[in-house]
Amino acid sequence: MEELILKGKAAKLAASILATAGTDAKNTALYKIAEAFSANSEYIIAENQKDIAAARQNGISEGLIDRLTLNDVRISAMSEGIRQIAELPDPIGEVVGEFKRPNGLHIGETRVPLGVVGIIYEARPNVTADAAALCIKSGNACILRCGKEAHKSAMAIARIIRESLAAAGLPSDCVNLVENTSRDSALALMKLNDYLDVIIPRGGAGLIRSVVENATVPAIETGTGNCHVFIDESADLEMAKNIVINAKTSRPSVCNAEEKLLVHQNVAETFLPEILGALTEKSVEIIGDEAVCKIFPHATAATEEDWGTEYLDLKIGVKVVDDLEAAIVHINQYGSRHSEAIITESYKNSQRFLEAVDAAAVYVNASTRFTDGFEFGFGAEIGISTQKIHARGPMGLKALTTTKYIIRGNGQIR
Amino acid sequence: MEELILKGKAAKLAASILATAGTDAKNTALYKIAEAFSANSEYIIAENQKDIAAARQNGISEGLIDRLTLNDVRISAMSEGIRQIAELPDPIGEVVGEFKRPNGLHIGETRVPLGVVGIIYEARPNVTADAAALCIKSGNACILRCGKEAHKSAMAIARIIRESLAAAGLPSDCVNLVENTSRDSALALMKLNDYLDVIIPRGGAGLIRSVVENATVPAIETGTGNCHVFIDESADLEMAKNIVINAKTSRPSVCNAEEKLLVHQNVAETFLPEILGALTEKSVEIIGDEAVCKIFPHATAATEEDWGTEYLDLKIGVKVVDDLEAAIVHINQYGSRHSEAIITESYKNSQRFLEAVDAAAVYVNASTRFTDGFEFGFGAEIGISTQKIHARGPMGLKALTTTKYIIRGNGQIR
Repeated sequence: MEELILKGKAAKLAASILATAGTDAKNTALYKIAEAFSANSEYIIAENQKDIAAARQNGISEGLIDRLTLNDVRISAMSEGIRQIAELPDPIGEVVGEFKRPNGLHIGETRVPLGVVGIIYEARPNVTADAAALCIKSGNACILRCGKEAHKSAMAIARIIRESLAAAGLPSDCVNLVENTSRDSALALMKLNDYLDVIIPRGGAGLIRSVVENATVPAIETGTGNCHVFIDESADLEMAKNIVINAKTSRPSVCNAEEKLLVHQNVAETFLPEILGALTEKSVEIIGDEAVCKIFPHATAATEEDWGTEYLDLKIGVKVVDDLEAAIVHINQYGSRHSEAIITESYKNSQRFLEAVDAAAVYVNASTRFTDGFEFGFGAEIGISTQKIHARGPMGLKALTTTKYIIRGNGQIR
Repeated sequence: MEELILKGKAAKLAASILATAGTDAKNTALYKIAEAFSANSEYIIAENQKDIAAARQNGISEGLIDRLTLNDVRISAMSEGIRQIAELPDPIGEVVGEFKRPNGLHIGETRVPLGVVGIIYEARPNVTADAAALCIKSGNACILRCGKEAHKSAMAIARIIRESLAAAGLPSDCVNLVENTSRDSALALMKLNDYLDVIIPRGGAGLIRSVVENATVPAIETGTGNCHVFIDESADLEMAKNIVINAKTSRPSVCNAEEKLLVHQNVAETFLPEILGALTEKSVEIIGDEAVCKIFPHATAATEEDWGTEYLDLKIGVKVVDDLEAAIVHINQYGSRHSEAIITESYKNSQRFLEAVDAAAVYVNASTRFTDGFEFGFGAEIGISTQKIHARGPMGLKALTTTKYIIRGNGQIR
């Protein structure tokens, strides 16, 4: 695709300049962008209104329109987010390791940008600002590909970013937004190996699956969270109740929300009626196995498919398990390796759960909702990796870097 | 493919046991394997002879047959390599980071195995032992897929490894060799997302390209090295000559060998006749740009394609460049991001080259041949990554691990 090759070439050239531009130049650009958003909020909102009008005409749901909408408050939040990224420490240039070999070679390993990052996202125009700022701070050029529903808004945001980069003396091609919004442009971006060093999808399960299946550029899989909370027989049941209610209901549409509740058989009869009653009061639909349905007749019978499903809704799958080991086996079979929790007062069981459960984040006595770059103190987040290579769990600025070996010699040969 | 699904399930189960098996159990298994190779060398050699006979019948080149051949000396070397891996520090369990959040959550980041590693290789049966041992030490189960030319030898080696694992009390399914040697089995392994956490090709450019194009499992691209040595105008020309001869001729078939020589125009007339004469004496074919052909008429004129080609042979592409910046631009355009060197006495130029060249390993005044896990002091090597995500440059045991966040709370909710 002609457009992508041109943008790829431009981004690669810009990346080589940005990589060695230094912290001050990058921060200056970020502050200018933040300022320009506020100064141009009317323009951004006008373009956003065109997207919203088209969305209404296409019968898009109100939930999606809410995500699509930009207003003064949200634009201020975008600016504030960018200022926060400017204030984070620059990851580039960190010396990760340094050693001298017996032959006198001095080997250093230094943190450097990835190069050119591709990011594919959907109908959230603010991701344009957020992703671009994270890339600039970490010294990467980026090619952004936004869903067509948010395209006019994203174009307006990208235009302001590019003008601000130029005003700060950096190449405007550090940030590029794909203009073609056909499905073909997303597929072509996933295969743009000559120009992209990595591709990151930010969106729903369908987008992530498409990237995993189609990308030839190295990809980082993000986001799916079929998260479990296991209530051990030794659990503090009051704590268990608070955590389950929080993990399930505080924000059911996000990937770190609880999707499944596993209860040790020895506390099922005490705990289930209370917690399921409390969840029902909060409008949570209960899907249970046979034992659960017996104890709590309002529950719907679970199918095999339920155990592997991320509902992202006020809905929870509940199962009674024989013991800790059964819980671990179930989680490792059906979980999506995102966030898993045990509620227990047993030291031994907490250790066993932490060791045996295979997930990016494993919790003892806390809500799964904490799996988040900000909650972890990273100050920013480009996504949550559910794969094992490169980065696992919440990805901050460091996940947008690689390293380079720097070897100084004085004539060594082998 | 039925066989792969069965092996995938078996490997995944074995991986969950191996992940928490502990250093002693893993080392015991490795020492048993090393011992069993020596004890069963006759069996291995007999199976290897069948592969060699078939190879001869199929008119396979002597070079390939040499790589395929196992004898007592090579089997001893395999055993010794495995003992060395046993003696390396266990990467698993290392606490990479640990911090406490204001809400009291204690977050630790711990090094854990990747899980199940797929490795696709060609006609080198010893890779079976080497790759399996690296996976065992790093707590990973593996599924190995060897080229059909070495399949009987690999089967014999894998059988001994599996028996030794069982004798050491570990699941024999920690190491699995694919029996189907059709092209389909390689493709199916690249798409075995339900069971594999990563796939690593070890072989030639064709294999690597096939993995990049076809794999849906996260892959680590290894190996291609179109490496440059740039002779700056300030270079110590005696040092430059030694390094170029070493980098080009000490082992031309490997990925860290020099493929291209760039010479600053101000030293071209002095340096080129001498170095090109010396290379010619060592039977190196010279492919030169116009300026080179003028100075050294024995050179063949280079085509555009030459600059991007990894010869892996006694052949070198030579070009005169205007200055340091022209050398950097050329390297970043045509290099494969493996290993690049500058020979210079200028501090400023060394710094600029180290910073601006985009490669896994960048050298000042040393041969590119040092890009190697053993030369870097890692004690082992699973390959050399030329991609930027997960691992870059020589990959030791750490490249076969990921991390897991372990979060301890006392009832925190969000």
